[in-house]
Amino acid sequence: MLADMRKMVNDHLLSLIPSSTEIPESLVAAMNYSLNAGGKRLRPILVLLAYESLGKDPKEILTPACALELIHTYSLIHDDLPCMDDDDLRRGKPTLHRQFPEAIAVLAGDALHALAFEFLASTGDARIVREVGSAIGISGMLGGQVADVESEGKDITLADIDYIHRKKTAALIEVSLKIGAMLANADEKLIHTLSVYGFKIGLAFQIVDDILDVTGDQDKLGKQVGSDLKNLKATYPKVVGMDESRRRAAELIDEAKDVISAIGPQAAPFTYLADFILNRDN
Amino acid sequence: MLADMRKMVNDHLLSLIPSSTEIPESLVAAMNYSLNAGGKRLRPILVLLAYESLGKDPKEILTPACALELIHTYSLIHDDLPCMDDDDLRRGKPTLHRQFPEAIAVLAGDALHALAFEFLASTGDARIVREVGSAIGISGMLGGQVADVESEGKDITLADIDYIHRKKTAALIEVSLKIGAMLANADEKLIHTLSVYGFKIGLAFQIVDDILDVTGDQDKLGKQVGSDLKNLKATYPKVVGMDESRRRAAELIDEAKDVISAIGPQAAPFTYLADFILNRDN
Repeated sequence: MLADMRKMVNDHLLSLIPSSTEIPESLVAAMNYSLNAGGKRLRPILVLLAYESLGKDPKEILTPACALELIHTYSLIHDDLPCMDDDDLRRGKPTLHRQFPEAIAVLAGDALHALAFEFLASTGDARIVREVGSAIGISGMLGGQVADVESEGKDITLADIDYIHRKKTAALIEVSLKIGAMLANADEKLIHTLSVYGFKIGLAFQIVDDILDVTGDQDKLGKQVGSDLKNLKATYPKVVGMDESRRRAAELIDEAKDVISAIGPQAAPFTYLADFILNRDN
Repeated sequence: MLADMRKMVNDHLLSLIPSSTEIPESLVAAMNYSLNAGGKRLRPILVLLAYESLGKDPKEILTPACALELIHTYSLIHDDLPCMDDDDLRRGKPTLHRQFPEAIAVLAGDALHALAFEFLASTGDARIVREVGSAIGISGMLGGQVADVESEGKDITLADIDYIHRKKTAALIEVSLKIGAMLANADEKLIHTLSVYGFKIGLAFQIVDDILDVTGDQDKLGKQVGSDLKNLKATYPKVVGMDESRRRAAELIDEAKDVISAIGPQAAPFTYLADFILNRDN
């Protein structure tokens, strides 16, 4: 079921970037290179699952759902730049700035960012745009990325790393569920339940990411293992150790499943997804 | 009158970036550094003028108008990066990546980009978000920036340089007028008139920019003179010569004034602004 939804997202992404004689070919090629390099498609799938859980057909909102993948991809492209993490490998392929000129990588990231907002606005619902703008801005993802960059080489506390995880990763995952519910006209209570679930799996997702950077298989991950260590990054295992990191991730997943059980039979795919996040190897 | 409006914009920009304990101080400082370094504030002023020409109070839309300045500033920050134009000076001060770590400059640009969309969405009007997203995306500003980067060192034609100017500069200036009119609920005909005026002054603005890069005074411009030449950029003077560039800019300004005269007595500030763009020395 998750695989079907991922295929639906992947198929939609393939033809999502407009191309015309008015648009530089290299820009479209660069955007598609990063966007279609694979990936779990977690964020658009969460939008679609939230929407579907309210009895709606996910096909109706494929474009705004995919906007979240455009945003995630733009953030990875900029994160990989030489002045940031300076990574060579992403999703099993050379990072965008290794494959294209660095200037094109910066601009392709910017272009995915702008296009995502255009797609979100195509719903006609300005609330959605506002929610996503807030989640990925200074109080959300970008705030977390700055804190992450500034944590490099410093002694950091559990509070610091929790801040970074909340902002850098959980905010975007949380808002994916939130806008899926909002687009389906869910009531406040349900929007809240889905958001809390999203926040918890988002935190767990990043802890597992930190763990996989130490224990993972580079071929499966499609990115360099040990990148956090190389960049002296603040990570969960570094601050609390590997055992406690695993315990905390499992605890968050349990909490998330508990929260989502309140929605009844519709909780099944969310429970499955929560377990997938805990046990993933890529 | 233009000075009053510029002051209104500058005052509003001073307190526009939210700050809280949840937001990294360095990020807010970097955003404010670039945003409050001065500048003509042309784009927000155009939003406000269009709105005011329809009998509305510009104070009502200061935040969405300033969103256009956030977008312009983000584009300058990324444009100045070492992998792009590698400029040291902007608005009379060191460029952001010279004053802050380069990673913070990239992320501050991204943060201004996201915040601009949040502000635009705060109008509740998703059409505005869509228009701006389209104007600054792959069919607009970013398409133009890629073409600009790729023109470096190449033989280019008048058609190429016109494409770059239309996309890189005129699209954002045009959409400033368009959304000002849309926010005031103007009819289609008036929106079109203001858009055409905006497109023409936008093209003239960039030709004058190209001219000033050759003939301008660095102290007045607040940025390096000769930057285009250094970067082997495609410019109007390079392709058609200085005299023809001046003639074309003046012709576009005449056409813009002619178009805007159709709106009657409300045309006065637009006529004044068109002349200002042609005769500016910064």
